[in-house]
Amino acid sequence: MKYINHEELLKMEPQYRVQVINSLSGFKSANLIGTRDENNINNLAIFSSVFHLGASPALVGFISRPDSVDRHTLRNIQQIGQFTINQVNADFWQAAHQTSARYSDGECEFKQTGLTPHFIDNSDAPFVKESQLKYALKLNEIVPIRLNNTLLVIGEITDILCDKAAIKADGYIDIESLNTVMVSGLDSYHTSKRLSRLSYAKPGILPTKISLDGKS
Amino acid sequence: MKYINHEELLKMEPQYRVQVINSLSGFKSANLIGTRDENNINNLAIFSSVFHLGASPALVGFISRPDSVDRHTLRNIQQIGQFTINQVNADFWQAAHQTSARYSDGECEFKQTGLTPHFIDNSDAPFVKESQLKYALKLNEIVPIRLNNTLLVIGEITDILCDKAAIKADGYIDIESLNTVMVSGLDSYHTSKRLSRLSYAKPGILPTKISLDGKS
Repeated sequence: MKYINHEELLKMEPQYRVQVINSLSGFKSANLIGTRDENNINNLAIFSSVFHLGASPALVGFISRPDSVDRHTLRNIQQIGQFTINQVNADFWQAAHQTSARYSDGECEFKQTGLTPHFIDNSDAPFVKESQLKYALKLNEIVPIRLNNTLLVIGEITDILCDKAAIKADGYIDIESLNTVMVSGLDSYHTSKRLSRLSYAKPGILPTKISLDGKS
Repeated sequence: MKYINHEELLKMEPQYRVQVINSLSGFKSANLIGTRDENNINNLAIFSSVFHLGASPALVGFISRPDSVDRHTLRNIQQIGQFTINQVNADFWQAAHQTSARYSDGECEFKQTGLTPHFIDNSDAPFVKESQLKYALKLNEIVPIRLNNTLLVIGEITDILCDKAAIKADGYIDIESLNTVMVSGLDSYHTSKRLSRLSYAKPGILPTKISLDGKS
């Protein structure tokens, strides 16, 4: 095992350090966030920081860095109050990565990457047609993280679109069957291989493997 | 595609809804958080909400639900100001899941699950010996999320322990080679299969696959 102490961590060359630190949190979800500005120009950007915040109310959060390419996403969400989150799958992971290029304000990432915008009646924000699991959110709160000037953007889920076959009897969605991808570090993409679902853990009894439908 | 509108979402049976909503954010990292209380009793709990917050300073966050099994972790971090995060791998994923059982205060999850505590000089919090990538943190800030009474716990990374062979030339850590696992929904565990690392995205040029060492 290599041991890196605090002094060594602080002395690392900045780009090396960014790679190391981005690898530590483990695998990250890969999601495209779709927004629209006041002039109806669509925006699309990949985020690896989307995370579950709660089921009731149904809340999802992500971290925005106001000085990076994220800035159009943040501004649009602040202006329109709505956004979509679209799981990236193995059919368009390279196009999804390309949305992280620093396009200028008038350039639409959908057009630049070949992805297809798709709308539903209840949301002004564009979905990604190619995504097999996606949902619309309304902005609920933006929490400033003062330690590093990032923002935690929290949305409430209003509408869900999902490939029907992936939704199992107990509500679990088999995102592996949708070829949903994940990220490690800054730029490595992966598909998944299931070990198993496990039964609810209780003291004194080891968990057992359960079926995809949630049955023992 | 199945379309679920807001009314249908609100009417879902609570346990079904928890499964659906927990599937939406995509794959989640699987990490064990190690803490110690004032009486030197070790605690270990699995979290699927650990996420990267920034590289400089090196910050990691996770979400704690004060009324759940997380409560011992939260209390210990508040008391001692230190914790460890240990990536779960395919050699001990079932033991890691078992730490989510509601053990009482005096019961040590290390003893109950067969995992091995390991200490370094600079931290009072226990590492998981079986983990191949782990780090110590000092508590930096606890940000209340008022929308659902959860807490965002933010730590600064002080010390890293990692299998040496997994650290590549540019700092990227090949967590796939460590058999690091991820979670989907509440209880499904997966290993990964790499598609590729991709070059840094720039407007007008499609990203290309790069080597594990970050070379074109």
